[in-house]
Amino acid sequence: MEKISLGGKLSLFSEHWSPKVIAELNGHQVKLVKLQGEFVWHDHQDADEMFLVIEGKMFIEFEDETIELNSGEMLVVPRGVKHRPYAPEECAVMLVEPRGVVNTGDTESELTAVNDSWI
Amino acid sequence: MEKISLGGKLSLFSEHWSPKVIAELNGHQVKLVKLQGEFVWHDHQDADEMFLVIEGKMFIEFEDETIELNSGEMLVVPRGVKHRPYAPEECAVMLVEPRGVVNTGDTESELTAVNDSWI
Repeated sequence: MEKISLGGKLSLFSEHWSPKVIAELNGHQVKLVKLQGEFVWHDHQDADEMFLVIEGKMFIEFEDETIELNSGEMLVVPRGVKHRPYAPEECAVMLVEPRGVVNTGDTESELTAVNDSWI
Repeated sequence: MEKISLGGKLSLFSEHWSPKVIAELNGHQVKLVKLQGEFVWHDHQDADEMFLVIEGKMFIEFEDETIELNSGEMLVVPRGVKHRPYAPEECAVMLVEPRGVVNTGDTESELTAVNDSWI
């Protein structure tokens, strides 16, 4: 059993839109991801997805509103809800979601990341 | 869909050892709890439990070691592993665990909190 430092883990990678798994519990994974720029519209049909901003600011665009998240703020995006994350400047985010969730959902994209990549 | 501010939620309560649910996803709950002093030895037979320190410092004592967690550090305590959290000074922690987990596990204690208490 080893403790995990969010800052330490964030210092180990620099690429954007490529979630890194840092822990697993009860079939869920905790991931860190760095965002910058615009992601693709997508949803996750079978998974609610939690975003917690660790550093910086991000936005999550929905069909009818856009929510701004700053450091220390979080949002759960319910399954099946189309969303598009974006971040004008680099932003570090913690995700919690079931093991196996692909970052772009069913949307094929060059931004689709390798799943289950641990750091 | 509303964003959740960890600091905002933490400002709404002051009692110790009484986890407050702030979000739910895929049968898991995200809780905030303020710790001060010593908790009871306990385990959760069917649930891995994640601790992330938001403010302050806590310790989790195990049968063969003690792990110190500072702000921005986290630990997953696997199911069935006996542990005892303590915090010399007040410490604010985020928990992630399945819905229904009781804070003291199967250990009867005056510190057993009301379950599923939302804030």
